[in-house]
Amino acid sequence: MADLIIGIDGGGTSCRAAVADPDGTVLGRGRSGAANILTDPNNAIVSITEAAEAACRDAGIPVETIAKASAFLGLAGTNVGNLTQYVRERLPFRHTDIDSDGLIALQGAIGDAEGSVAILGTGTIFMARRAGTVHYIGGWGFIIGDLGGGARLGHALLQEALLAHDGIHPRSAVTDAILAEFKHDPTAMVEFARLSKPGDFGRYAPLVFQHAQQNDPGALALVEAAARSVNESLDAITRIGGHERLCLLGGLAPLYPAWLEPRHRAILVDPQADALAGAVALAAKRFRERSGGATA
Amino acid sequence: MADLIIGIDGGGTSCRAAVADPDGTVLGRGRSGAANILTDPNNAIVSITEAAEAACRDAGIPVETIAKASAFLGLAGTNVGNLTQYVRERLPFRHTDIDSDGLIALQGAIGDAEGSVAILGTGTIFMARRAGTVHYIGGWGFIIGDLGGGARLGHALLQEALLAHDGIHPRSAVTDAILAEFKHDPTAMVEFARLSKPGDFGRYAPLVFQHAQQNDPGALALVEAAARSVNESLDAITRIGGHERLCLLGGLAPLYPAWLEPRHRAILVDPQADALAGAVALAAKRFRERSGGATA
Repeated sequence: MADLIIGIDGGGTSCRAAVADPDGTVLGRGRSGAANILTDPNNAIVSITEAAEAACRDAGIPVETIAKASAFLGLAGTNVGNLTQYVRERLPFRHTDIDSDGLIALQGAIGDAEGSVAILGTGTIFMARRAGTVHYIGGWGFIIGDLGGGARLGHALLQEALLAHDGIHPRSAVTDAILAEFKHDPTAMVEFARLSKPGDFGRYAPLVFQHAQQNDPGALALVEAAARSVNESLDAITRIGGHERLCLLGGLAPLYPAWLEPRHRAILVDPQADALAGAVALAAKRFRERSGGATA
Repeated sequence: MADLIIGIDGGGTSCRAAVADPDGTVLGRGRSGAANILTDPNNAIVSITEAAEAACRDAGIPVETIAKASAFLGLAGTNVGNLTQYVRERLPFRHTDIDSDGLIALQGAIGDAEGSVAILGTGTIFMARRAGTVHYIGGWGFIIGDLGGGARLGHALLQEALLAHDGIHPRSAVTDAILAEFKHDPTAMVEFARLSKPGDFGRYAPLVFQHAQQNDPGALALVEAAARSVNESLDAITRIGGHERLCLLGGLAPLYPAWLEPRHRAILVDPQADALAGAVALAAKRFRERSGGATA
């Protein structure tokens, strides 16, 4: 059997794998549990291996084949801490390249082209490829970063609801909605916030966009502030990535375009493919480089 | 020996006590460790008792006297949870009244008058007395409240420094200063933020005010945003407390007046006394009420 390549898209909730020919033709796909190398590197190793084996079974290939495969992994959490080497040394592949989940998303979205990609989900990160180099802006996480992300938007809604409750800001439909959800008990809202992870705040982001679309003044102010931050970040990233193409990814990608500056809307393109396809493409590229083939 | 009264000002870092004659004349003062009834009620009971006994020793009175005393306690954390009764039942005083640390601060600051008091420290809370009733606005804590407080201001500085680092916002003297403190390593800043309590963020607030006074654009934007929030809250509290007097307390009280709207600056008054004096005054008032005396 010829050599195989494997692409891995590993995140905090699940891990996806695709096994492919060296030219990138996908033969099978698999999925497993969380692969967060920051919070649980040993479990991430198990999840990555399971997803790769599941992809082999899906392709009708013996799972032992992964020992001869070249894998490219895009993983969340690679920008913090020093666990990448620990994980790499314990994975079952012949060759293992690990990079960020952002890089495989960019590769999937715009292929080998120059341009910018913004991931607008619970958090936010902005990326650009220029002259073969990938640059990153943001992605620092919920506590002092990720402005414009769903978590910060949901957080801002709870904060605004307290201001409305106290009579400091006017009430509006969106603050009434969230206060009603907490039975108009601010202490319940404070307790929720104390126990919340970013994803818990982020679940309220779509509610804010919905009310903004209906011109609710409270929601408009929140979305406009978030969009101002995203527009500023897009200005910064397109200064690097150029003004030819901009691709939005993540759960808020369908909601943001209406709120972006015309200069950004004008260059929006749809993603070519997803992050897993990006991981396969990067695995194929590294395989060709190792084989002494064209580096395209 | 005549009956005695005791005033207690209990907070997260220390507990102060004053023992006094029933007319409020202070005979002695004492101090002890943290008295946070939310995080450690049993230790709070120990601290409160120790402070009261220290006040007795300072006055030359046997410490056993506290068993016959009427105490008024202003404690942090009484607005959340249900630990007030637990603490009250285990304290050694004959009569024990527990209310918020805010109430004794208000009593100390403006006595029995009508008016508004803002505590501008690590957090923020706004209070007003009108027709004998005390009203509270804010004070919801760092996570989704306390806008304008030192913790939120320090947090905003770290966030702004990341934006400056990423080229999203212009750099300025204040963001350069904080980035230099973290050796221009954003991940160190993110890690600091992850581990920080409100007080840790709050330590950067004076730095922001200093740079704003020197017209640093980055610091000006941060202080102006914080002051906007404080001005809005003062509008709300003076709608209740009237426009006769406004008293600022807390670590940021000396720094904020220059940034307040003229309508608020015009009614600023100095505090008459501190929170411990307020606790003694309230203890004296409750003692008179129990003794069937005039309720003043």
